[in-house]
Amino acid sequence: MAEPIHYVRDKERLLERLRKIEGQVRGIHRMVENDRYCVDILAQIAAVRSALNRVGLILLESHTRGCVARSIREDHGDEAIEELMTVLFKFIK
Amino acid sequence: MAEPIHYVRDKERLLERLRKIEGQVRGIHRMVENDRYCVDILAQIAAVRSALNRVGLILLESHTRGCVARSIREDHGDEAIEELMTVLFKFIK
Amino acid sequence: MAEPIHYVRDKERLLERLRKIEGQVRGIHRMVENDRYCVDILAQIAAVRSALNRVGLILLESHTRGCVARSIREDHGDEAIEELMTVLFKFIK
Amino acid sequence: MAEPIHYVRDKERLLERLRKIEGQVRGIHRMVENDRYCVDILAQIAAVRSALNRVGLILLESHTRGCVARSIREDHGDEAIEELMTVLFKFIK
Repeated sequence: MAEPIHYVRDKERLLERLRKIEGQVRGIHRMVENDRYCVDILAQIAAVRSALNRVGLILLESHTRGCVARSIREDHGDEAIEELMTVLFKFIK
Repeated sequence: MAEPIHYVRDKERLLERLRKIEGQVRGIHRMVENDRYCVDILAQIAAVRSALNRVGLILLESHTRGCVARSIREDHGDEAIEELMTVLFKFIK
Repeated sequence: MAEPIHYVRDKERLLERLRKIEGQVRGIHRMVENDRYCVDILAQIAAVRSALNRVGLILLESHTRGCVARSIREDHGDEAIEELMTVLFKFIK
Repeated sequence: MAEPIHYVRDKERLLERLRKIEGQVRGIHRMVENDRYCVDILAQIAAVRSALNRVGLILLESHTRGCVARSIREDHGDEAIEELMTVLFKFIK
């Protein structure tokens, strides 16, 4: 079944952020390779984690405004909300 | 001042994990590019976040066993512990 | 304005969990008072945090199934979703 | 074996914070009881979670400055650090 996609509006913004995160992870790899100071690496890891959370929140918002809202309007919102909660549980635990 | 590095023992393991994380982030980028389903992307983001936390914990352990322990033995542990807490605060908040 | 409440179905379950959490916090207070071992107290704090997250997820689900779904059906879902995201941001950061 | 306690200095501060957290949890219980708006309750839960994290960080710092540092100075730091990491893992995951 084709899934209608609702983050199109945010797509460029998301791709840009993900490219930046990929670069940050590569930077952390380089820091470890060059024996950089642990605390600096840890601060960098915390920064990437925040950036990933931000991407997750953008997607969550698009998904809720898109798929979830549409499912609710078409009166089969229950599964959509259940699915949303399952994925939220992975973020909040 | 040169910082003595204490994650040497874990270095290969860390680099391997970071390479894998970089690949996962690239995979998420591709998922967004190909308009994949939000919930699948979100699950993938949660997985990368866990993988990053794991890397953070390995570094934290190396850092505590190494730099922090040495500072304590040389009787100037206070700054090392303060620095450790500052970085922990970025992870736990 | 009266807010229609949608966690009625879960209300007893939520109150029960909150009573338990209150007891756990009181237990932690007692542990500190009695100079119990830090690591045991920390484990207890992590447990309460998980229990609170669980309550948060139950409320999130009720709220989404209730208020948010109703707002969407009545075609003014935008503010409800924005509000939902603002509160999610406090949990995932 | 009796565990020497090292958060004595912070004890009053910790007990005060825990008393406040207990009151906040009781407040959340009351909000649910009175059918208060979900989003307000969720914001309150996020606040308690932050307050608990703060208590956890104070304990972590006391524990590291106290028990862990002493163990390291007495040349049996390995178990203390391992234990510290196990409890950190419960916070960061």
